[in-house]
Amino acid sequence: MALTVVGSIAFDAVKTPFGERERMLGGSAVHFSLAASFFTDVRVVGPVGDDFGEAELAVLHDRGVDTADIERVAGGKTFFWRGHYDFDLNTAHTDDTQLNVFGDFAPKLSPESRDCDVLFLANIQPDLQREVRAQCQRARFVAMDSMNLWIETARDSLVDTIKGVDGLLLNDAELRQLTEQPNLVRAAREVMSWGPEIVVAKQGEYGAALFHGDEFFALPAYPLEDVVDPTGAGDSFAGGFVGYLAAQPDAGAGRDVLRRAMAHGTALASFNVSEFGTERVARLTDDEVRDRVDELHRLTTCAV
Amino acid sequence: MALTVVGSIAFDAVKTPFGERERMLGGSAVHFSLAASFFTDVRVVGPVGDDFGEAELAVLHDRGVDTADIERVAGGKTFFWRGHYDFDLNTAHTDDTQLNVFGDFAPKLSPESRDCDVLFLANIQPDLQREVRAQCQRARFVAMDSMNLWIETARDSLVDTIKGVDGLLLNDAELRQLTEQPNLVRAAREVMSWGPEIVVAKQGEYGAALFHGDEFFALPAYPLEDVVDPTGAGDSFAGGFVGYLAAQPDAGAGRDVLRRAMAHGTALASFNVSEFGTERVARLTDDEVRDRVDELHRLTTCAV
Repeated sequence: MALTVVGSIAFDAVKTPFGERERMLGGSAVHFSLAASFFTDVRVVGPVGDDFGEAELAVLHDRGVDTADIERVAGGKTFFWRGHYDFDLNTAHTDDTQLNVFGDFAPKLSPESRDCDVLFLANIQPDLQREVRAQCQRARFVAMDSMNLWIETARDSLVDTIKGVDGLLLNDAELRQLTEQPNLVRAAREVMSWGPEIVVAKQGEYGAALFHGDEFFALPAYPLEDVVDPTGAGDSFAGGFVGYLAAQPDAGAGRDVLRRAMAHGTALASFNVSEFGTERVARLTDDEVRDRVDELHRLTTCAV
Repeated sequence: MALTVVGSIAFDAVKTPFGERERMLGGSAVHFSLAASFFTDVRVVGPVGDDFGEAELAVLHDRGVDTADIERVAGGKTFFWRGHYDFDLNTAHTDDTQLNVFGDFAPKLSPESRDCDVLFLANIQPDLQREVRAQCQRARFVAMDSMNLWIETARDSLVDTIKGVDGLLLNDAELRQLTEQPNLVRAAREVMSWGPEIVVAKQGEYGAALFHGDEFFALPAYPLEDVVDPTGAGDSFAGGFVGYLAAQPDAGAGRDVLRRAMAHGTALASFNVSEFGTERVARLTDDEVRDRVDELHRLTTCAV
């Protein structure tokens, strides 16, 4: 079923203990789209500048992502982020952020994008998320991400947005910050009391935890000896999770479907972090995804 | 099969956002013993002072723990620890440590304690751990814990001790510190290259990860809305894990046995943290343990 994602499209400059890239394709909507493209048709909505070229578009096209709603702003420059990671790869250190065309982003969805079955609101200003959500009335499942910036500067708007979606995916520290609940179970319950039926706490190297009504499920991250660049891991997880759900007739409904979606998100995130930027996911195959999901199942099964 | 544990026996003063206790039974060997007592016969070895009374012994006796090798040092005082936790219950803040009789501890094992099948060396000075290990030649499985203090002040001795055991249980941050490997998989492999076949990374609220040859397994902590006092969680986990192994004919040998041991450790830790000190585990029943292990299995099973 058709999936639309709205979010950032970026150039990233990243340095980690294992290497660096001066300018590579990034952004939440890009990482999400590539991951979700393994499961369903994806349309990506976001702004770029004149500096965004055919090479970058080709990465998306090669995975079948529809880029018709990528808005090219004449005379503008694409969102740019520069950051580095030390040996503790859990913490991104931001060295430079240039919002550029992303600073004036007013999402314009084509009729085709608005007609989606599933909508993902990647991390953008929560008022904009709500506007997009209102344009997609036919969507039977809507999920979103956010970040500490909006919790700190636009909490009321963010909570309003959360009330209108079916699923919230957020870092666990941000879930606690948002709800002022130090206990993660209570934090997730608080969010569910606002409306969403599904809350996923992204926990970085520790994996992710799913809350769904009274149900709980958690998966560790896939154990990797070489984590090269964690940038985009959370967005790849979201793309695998929501993309897998979008491909099911009962997206968001069943416990087993949700657990399998967690495994697919975890698998996509594990490929994402094993090389820089989109490099690994861009050449990933369906077989590799399936094998890693099978391996995750084997690694986490406890025969009691 | 008979299990001997050597470690600290303490009085703890603990304050958390959910209450406080001015003086309660604690210590690594105590938390370990109580947890392990659900699975096998346990002998506890450690020093106490004149202030250690019948009420404290009764907690251990009520769980069937053999206390004949608890050494009462005349004129001495029991090891005392005072600490507090803020809303981030992952971090213990130490306010006072009085080693007292624990400072001069020279473990004396009776013939019965030396004749154990399984030995657990709780967190004590690594030279002492090695001395104890040498006294228990018949043990078919030996596991140990340690802490950052010994990594920083006695690393060579600690590594020597690790070389002589079958299993190392350590906080994940300490595993990285010990091996100077920021990647947890590499850290565990490094430790296994020294000798141990099993490495367990304890991850606090995120659960625990098991490395065993090329095998990997991870379990989240049991999701609790009320974590009251995390003191002793790691020792209770170790007691459940090692105690369960000690009760199996093939302790430490099989993948499925190790995974079930992880579930039992996780279950015991979850009870430990739900009240202060030993309070919850002291009145725990076999049925409650079994139900929680079943629940953990249900919570973590992903039907791919």
